[in-house]
Order: sequence, then C-alpha cells, then structure tokens
Amino acid sequence: MVLEKVGYQGIEGSYSEEALMLHFNNKVYEKNNYSKFEDVFIAIDKGEVHSGVLPIENSSTGAIAEVYDLLNKYDCKIVGEQYVKVSHSLLGTQEATIETIEEVYSHPQGFEQSKEFLSAYDHWRCIPYYNTARSARLVKKENSPVKAAIGSMRAAELYGLKVLKEGINCHGRNTTRFIIVKKEQIYEENQNKISVILSTKHEAGALFSVLRHLADEGINMVKIESRPLVEEPWEYLFYIDFEGNLLDNKIRSTMKRMEETSCYLKLLGNYKKGDRPWQK
Amino acid sequence: MVLEKVGYQGIEGSYSEEALMLHFNNKVYEKNNYSKFEDVFIAIDKGEVHSGVLPIENSSTGAIAEVYDLLNKYDCKIVGEQYVKVSHSLLGTQEATIETIEEVYSHPQGFEQSKEFLSAYDHWRCIPYYNTARSARLVKKENSPVKAAIGSMRAAELYGLKVLKEGINCHGRNTTRFIIVKKEQIYEENQNKISVILSTKHEAGALFSVLRHLADEGINMVKIESRPLVEEPWEYLFYIDFEGNLLDNKIRSTMKRMEETSCYLKLLGNYKKGDRPWQK
Repeated sequence: MVLEKVGYQGIEGSYSEEALMLHFNNKVYEKNNYSKFEDVFIAIDKGEVHSGVLPIENSSTGAIAEVYDLLNKYDCKIVGEQYVKVSHSLLGTQEATIETIEEVYSHPQGFEQSKEFLSAYDHWRCIPYYNTARSARLVKKENSPVKAAIGSMRAAELYGLKVLKEGINCHGRNTTRFIIVKKEQIYEENQNKISVILSTKHEAGALFSVLRHLADEGINMVKIESRPLVEEPWEYLFYIDFEGNLLDNKIRSTMKRMEETSCYLKLLGNYKKGDRPWQK
Repeated sequence: MVLEKVGYQGIEGSYSEEALMLHFNNKVYEKNNYSKFEDVFIAIDKGEVHSGVLPIENSSTGAIAEVYDLLNKYDCKIVGEQYVKVSHSLLGTQEATIETIEEVYSHPQGFEQSKEFLSAYDHWRCIPYYNTARSARLVKKENSPVKAAIGSMRAAELYGLKVLKEGINCHGRNTTRFIIVKKEQIYEENQNKISVILSTKHEAGALFSVLRHLADEGINMVKIESRPLVEEPWEYLFYIDFEGNLLDNKIRSTMKRMEETSCYLKLLGNYKKGDRPWQK
C-alpha cells in the first residue's frame, strides 16, 4: 500500500484536519500541515504531497474566494469533496464555568456562526483569532478561567479543554464543504460532479448562451457564482458546478460547446459528490 | 433641508464611514455608527435612522454573505450603491519605521489583500483584529514602535499615525461595493439596476428557465450567485442583479414572469449604479 501524503492548512484540531481524516479514513496516509492555503497548492505542485484538502464553501457564510482564486492560478484538479459538519462548542479550562468567562477567542466566522448564543452574553469580549483550533490552543496555554474559545469537540479533546456548552452555532445543519486536490485529473466511472471556471463577455444573454448547453442536455447545474474580474472589469468570471462524468461523450461534447460560447473555460475537476452529513 | 440620519457599521475611519461620506457628500447628514451589520438594519426598521450604508461585495474577496442574508431577513430596500477604493497602507507611530515593526494588526481581509507585500516580512507577527480602523486606533493607543496596523489613509489621519508604506494591497483596483438601504423603495427615472433574491427547485434547467426571461428581453444580468439553503437543502437560493428600471413596463412584466417560474422571488431594490473608482 502506498503511503498517501496529504497537505492541509491549519493546525491539529482544525476542521480541515477533520475533513482530511474523514476523507482518507480507509487509507494509509501522512498529514502535512501548512500555514497558508497557497502553501498547500505549492506543496502539491512541487510533489511534496500527493493531495491537498481545502475548504471551498460554508453553508452559512458562502464561498471561500481565496481557494477559488488559487484553483484558477495553479494547475491542480479537484478529485473529491468532503462535507464536514461544523459544530462549535464553548471551550474553557477545567476551572472555568459559563459564569467565570470574560473573553472569548475564535475565528471571526466562529463568532458569526455562534452569534445567537453570544447575544445572551453581551458583556463577553469577543477577540478575533487565527482560527478555532489555535483559539483552543491559546486558552489551554493561558490557562485562565476567564478565557474561552469557540471550537470543535475534537479541539477540546486535543487541547484538554472543558466543554462549557456544546453546539452553540446557529444552524444545526452548518457544514463546510472541502475539496480534495491533486496535480492530475483522475478518470473514474463513479465521478458525478464537474467544476469549471469560465468567463463571458459583459453583454445581455452571454451567460445564458453558455448555460443553454447544459439545459438542452438536461444536465443539472449544482452551483453558480459570478466573480468580479479585478483586472478586466468588463468581463465576468463564473464558477459553475454541474452533474456528469468526463468519460461520458454527451458531457464532453456539451463542455466543448460551452467552451466555444465562452471567452475562456477551465476544467477544475471531475469527482464524486460528497455525502452531506444530514443525508447519512 | 431635512437632516438625513445615516447608520453604518464600524468606527470612524472605517471604509463604511468613507462610503457614507462619499455617497452623502452633497447632503446634510448625521452619522450614527453601530457595532454589528444587523444593528444597522434594526435601526432602519425602527426609524432611528433614515438610511444605512453596508458593504455587499469586495472585488478581491467576494460577496459579503451576512449582508445578503440580512437583506433577505429584513424588509428594507436597496436605494443606491457606492464603490470605495480599498487602499491599505502600513501605519505606525511617529517613532516607527519599517525596520522597527514586529507586530501587525488588521482585519483578516486586510492581511489577505496585502499578502504580497507582507510576504517580504516573514518575521512579522500578523495579529487579526476587529477591522482596519480599530487596528489603527489600537496602534495609536499602545504607542509602541514595534506595532503597526494595515488601514486606510483616512484612519492614519484620524488617529495621528505615520504612513510607513502607502498602497500595500495587491490589486490596484481593489474596491468594496456598498449599498444604501432604506425602509421603502423609491421610484426614480435614473435608477438602472435591480437586485432580486429568488429560489428555484433543484432540477435541471430550473434556473435556466428563470434567466430565459431576461435573455428573451435582452436584459443584461450584472451578477449571479447561488447560496446553499441551510434549512432546505433541496432548493437553491440565487442573488441576481440586472439592468433596468421598475417604472418600465417591460421590466415589470419580465419580473412577473421570473416570479411565476421561481418558487420565491423578492425584490431587494432598484437603484442607480455606482461609478467604479477607476471609471472616473
């Protein structure tokens, strides 16, 4: 069995690490962690790791624009996806209780996703920090009963913190979608989702003409997002996900027609849809 | 002349305050600031302010999902938009130079947007903070030559900081688009952009059928974004901007047909397109 080297951004106890562990559950793998998203792409490019795991979309806060931009910049392919249920808890030291807390650390999205819970504790100072896992590690290190972190149950376990309140995020179904990225596209029968990036001219019906090819063939679009083009404000850039497999002739010919109708089209990858946690 | 009371999120020296000042330049107004985006919507709803100014999209980091969600939650209308050129500078105390800096404070997006500049100073500790204006105020308060903030020139002036390096963000054209929100829709001849939120069934061609009405009438779509529906994962939610005026019969009948083809359609507002800074 070949040892799969997998890169992720963040530290142990992060949701990225959790996505990696869930996705490579049945494989023999080695984890390499990096401090920036781009470092993961560079590591794949250099062959330092075989795969990378990166967050692409959160159900409550939307797309992660930086990762989309890196997919456009680097010549990597999406080969899989993994949903992770984001369940934030309030974590403190062994001496802490809800009543002793004065300061809470988390990633700004951690506060955003827990705002209904936090609104009952107006006197707490919410201090933005790098991410949820580092917030947990900080609370452990500072070891004060006035400090708490918003993070995962795994972070609590990893850093020996007490769970003051479990599941404080607003939406019970809050998930982050992660993508698995490799240097080369893989072709397998069970792949059923395709991601592309494309641009069209800034004129009435331009996008419509591209989407027509999908509708004509009854191909289901799963996601669409337009992005302002920083350097070319008269053009649009779109990220589109749709159902299909690249081994299917109908899909290949449809993509060819889409490409002909666009200014630019790049395949980001063909992969098997991940299971959403609440569908299991 | 009626005094216009305008709400914004953040403190003096924030880009939101700058957007407000640019937009209401020719009017007599009073600024009220709030700590959360939602507080601005509540203030409009209660009649505490006549208008609110909120960021909706950044050219390098994408849509601001929370504000979109609040537009869906509150019954307010977009009545205008204002682009603000985001130009970050490195700000320090009067004694500081680039060489004395060890710690940099900013909003995570401030770091993200300045990452090319920052990559030359690997030894600096980048400490995430609430926003760029509060980062500048913190550096002023702590008054240490090892601390710097990433923020605007206006923040430098307001908090008496020295500009160590001007314009450190990656994209010269980096802008944030702000919307002006009121309790009621206004109808004026010069309004040329319409924002709607709509949902469709999760089936092939569903969105295409809605967009067809725009394409059939030669109406230019300016933006589209799909959002996962947290509570109804089998439906899609779309934010769509297109050109037009609600006083135009063709626009009204097209919107009616779009509504009939959707599960749900809500008008977010009709307003005059803002000028992009580089078009001036």
